[in-house]
Amino acid sequence: MTSKVEQLKQHLYRRHDLGHANAVLGWDQEVNMPPGGVNARAEQQATLQSIAHEIFTSEETGKLLEAAEAEVAELDYDSDEASFVRVTRRGYDKLVKIPTELVAEMARATAQGFVAWREARQENDYPHFQPHLEKILDLNRRIADILGYEEHPYDALLDTYEPDITTAQVTQLFTELKEGLVPLLEEIVEEGQPVDGAFLEKDYPVDRQRDFTEVVLRQMGYDFNRGRQDEAPHPFTISFSRNDVRVTTRLFPNRPQSALFGSVHEGGHALYEQGIPEKFERTVLSGGATLGLHESQSRLWENMVGRSRPFWSYFLPIFRAFFPAQADGVSLEDFYRAINKVQPDFIRVEADEVTYNMHIFVRFEIEQAMVDGSLAVADIPEAWNSKYEEYLGIVPPTDTVGVLQDIHWSHGTIGYFPTYTLGNVIAAQLYRRMAQDLPGMEEGIARGELLPILDWMREHVHSYGSKFTAPELLERELGEGLLAQPLLDYMRAKYTEVYQL
Amino acid sequence: MTSKVEQLKQHLYRRHDLGHANAVLGWDQEVNMPPGGVNARAEQQATLQSIAHEIFTSEETGKLLEAAEAEVAELDYDSDEASFVRVTRRGYDKLVKIPTELVAEMARATAQGFVAWREARQENDYPHFQPHLEKILDLNRRIADILGYEEHPYDALLDTYEPDITTAQVTQLFTELKEGLVPLLEEIVEEGQPVDGAFLEKDYPVDRQRDFTEVVLRQMGYDFNRGRQDEAPHPFTISFSRNDVRVTTRLFPNRPQSALFGSVHEGGHALYEQGIPEKFERTVLSGGATLGLHESQSRLWENMVGRSRPFWSYFLPIFRAFFPAQADGVSLEDFYRAINKVQPDFIRVEADEVTYNMHIFVRFEIEQAMVDGSLAVADIPEAWNSKYEEYLGIVPPTDTVGVLQDIHWSHGTIGYFPTYTLGNVIAAQLYRRMAQDLPGMEEGIARGELLPILDWMREHVHSYGSKFTAPELLERELGEGLLAQPLLDYMRAKYTEVYQL
Repeated sequence: MTSKVEQLKQHLYRRHDLGHANAVLGWDQEVNMPPGGVNARAEQQATLQSIAHEIFTSEETGKLLEAAEAEVAELDYDSDEASFVRVTRRGYDKLVKIPTELVAEMARATAQGFVAWREARQENDYPHFQPHLEKILDLNRRIADILGYEEHPYDALLDTYEPDITTAQVTQLFTELKEGLVPLLEEIVEEGQPVDGAFLEKDYPVDRQRDFTEVVLRQMGYDFNRGRQDEAPHPFTISFSRNDVRVTTRLFPNRPQSALFGSVHEGGHALYEQGIPEKFERTVLSGGATLGLHESQSRLWENMVGRSRPFWSYFLPIFRAFFPAQADGVSLEDFYRAINKVQPDFIRVEADEVTYNMHIFVRFEIEQAMVDGSLAVADIPEAWNSKYEEYLGIVPPTDTVGVLQDIHWSHGTIGYFPTYTLGNVIAAQLYRRMAQDLPGMEEGIARGELLPILDWMREHVHSYGSKFTAPELLERELGEGLLAQPLLDYMRAKYTEVYQL
Repeated sequence: MTSKVEQLKQHLYRRHDLGHANAVLGWDQEVNMPPGGVNARAEQQATLQSIAHEIFTSEETGKLLEAAEAEVAELDYDSDEASFVRVTRRGYDKLVKIPTELVAEMARATAQGFVAWREARQENDYPHFQPHLEKILDLNRRIADILGYEEHPYDALLDTYEPDITTAQVTQLFTELKEGLVPLLEEIVEEGQPVDGAFLEKDYPVDRQRDFTEVVLRQMGYDFNRGRQDEAPHPFTISFSRNDVRVTTRLFPNRPQSALFGSVHEGGHALYEQGIPEKFERTVLSGGATLGLHESQSRLWENMVGRSRPFWSYFLPIFRAFFPAQADGVSLEDFYRAINKVQPDFIRVEADEVTYNMHIFVRFEIEQAMVDGSLAVADIPEAWNSKYEEYLGIVPPTDTVGVLQDIHWSHGTIGYFPTYTLGNVIAAQLYRRMAQDLPGMEEGIARGELLPILDWMREHVHSYGSKFTAPELLERELGEGLLAQPLLDYMRAKYTEVYQL
């Protein structure tokens, strides 16, 4: 006889297939779709999402879930079966409250919002995007009300991206970070030895950039038989199964670091998705757990590994082989300092490690005000610019490089940004422990040996799929909660040396 | 109050969205998907197809359909409403008989069969594909039995691609064609003035080929805002809505005519899809009507227009601008004769106009024998080769260029091939009438004026969407049935001149 857990699993296969099919449509929209396709695509995505939602929130799911819960009552919290049922329950209790019509409305609003955002960004025309953002914000506020919250409506949204962590906890953590990072940035700006990165502004043919990033991705352990890399204006990683995990990058002739670290960053996400055990396929446990955990993988690879001296001690000779004229006379030290140059600037995804979190502080505060209604959508650009002045000492000259730079709101995601800094925080915690566990790791990186890192992550993070929330996983693997100190220590040590403070 | 027709339409929107989403997944599989993705993709496609099937064959569809039929009983046969209900009924009566499980089984069998076929073709390993083909054939025979037929099980399959036309009618038409084409081919081979096409074997860089085909597609009226061209090993056209219609082509450095006529052919299909009125979107009337009608559009553009002297009188100077060294010293006459060279060869999609239909005769006869069980799957290669000897006087040296050359069976489609020759037949009928309706058309083509052709097709074919079967449309627009004579006349006239018979 088929167990209840198995019945629940099979009942939900279709939901996961629809979710992944929808992901293919989303990937296509950003990588390939001609402009004319937008309206039909919006309807198609709304249909897939609605049907998936109906299946998941059906009475049958509810009944099978109850029966499965009884069946796993005696099993370990960590077991595959109990975790499958528990994580399904968490999602079910949220989504069963949200009417299908609202899901479809969000799908339509975001399909159209995405196009409007892209046009608005190109034309520096925030008012063109404003009505779409108003609609999307309104839908998010309705969702927050439906889901419920104790302190702040933002809690309800944040919890969908990062369960088990509240707005108050994030605020506390970000305050600690500010106390360490703001003075560090001041010291760098005022006392640091200047960094010359002029060689990065030379002309780097984009085809060679693409080829070089593929060399790096392969060395990291990214499996091109189970993925591919394309170009997209806003790089992202997407998974259609553990065996088809795609990354995107962006290629600018005079800014090779954009493709380089974009690819390494997305590669970190992709290694996570490719590393989820096969046994979780087509279930809620497939795919990475939370956004913060996901971002810990990408940021660890991008910054702690990818912007480290040992990494470039191995890769610089290969980089020189690809770009002999451009890298002519550039020493490892020059290169290392150039890719770690700290400079307050407008664009989050191009930001250095130190200022990056300032970009997140701005968004975290603005989003809270949007959601609780204290900031009108029309007034966001002004609030945005004044917070940039406060945290980074600069004012964006246009909305294109200001409030319109990020894709997230157009995709309907509000409450997502703080997970980037949570990712940095978790990355530093994981990296500290990994370095203790793997003596000689950095010497290995200098020889191009990146697989021990991947193996460590496979064991301590990837193998669990979506079983655990971030606090659960940290407690279990590191025996600690979210901590600001490892990130602050890492930053202080690295930049004291880079800038000879 | 919403009419019953409108209710039926809305009820079926989801089915069409799922169908188009499934098409996106299919396109992705052939253009982009990494090898690892195949199993998950098979499940995803099976899920989308099963849900679409369930919606379409649901009791609710049956009830709404009956109510809608009562509502349109007094309306003109040709009206949008009556046509929508009639065409829905035709599909419903077929599909309601087919269990969802069989649909899902076919989706899985073909997703895996496609991969096996691709590997088998690459390795010249028919036995690797054989069990998949056996499975697919078995499913097709089960479908034929479920759908029912009067004379031959092949009728049931043919009717799903080309309604209103029987195996017996096709046999009759093909017999007439053979009587005209076999002697014509003999005369060409024995008495024709030799054609020199050596310049087509020079090196044509594939990027420039791609650019040139895009110039041609634009001139034909293909709208790149509502489509795009990619590479695929087996070119095809696919529609995700009238506003996102994509073509593919294949690029060989030493065979520019492959990309050229591949693109013009697919462009013909795509103009049809882009030309379906907006009002039919998300309904069964969207998209081209039958495969034969679809093929009439592609073959008319490829051969009657694209391989004509006036067409190249306009395009040869542009071709020369793209390929100055390769086309050096090639006159219009040389070029025209070279692209119309008749030569029995192995590959259908590369065949000239005269031998093309012989390739179809082979497939039509083999498929009938497969379906009625008189030919075992293991014996198909032998039967294939002996029919090639009979019709074309040549024996394929490998299965790769023999029985494994076509994608169709791996996609689950048996009974499809005859529609190619039906397309040639219909194309000749449409072309004859169009030339009468548009005096000076060929002089216009020589000036690059291709839009009158598109406009004529918009009016007489595209504007009806899927309202009419091929015999219905021919009767209505030309006042005649399917006729072999216009194609035979066209062939005889053209090749008498090309080969100076």
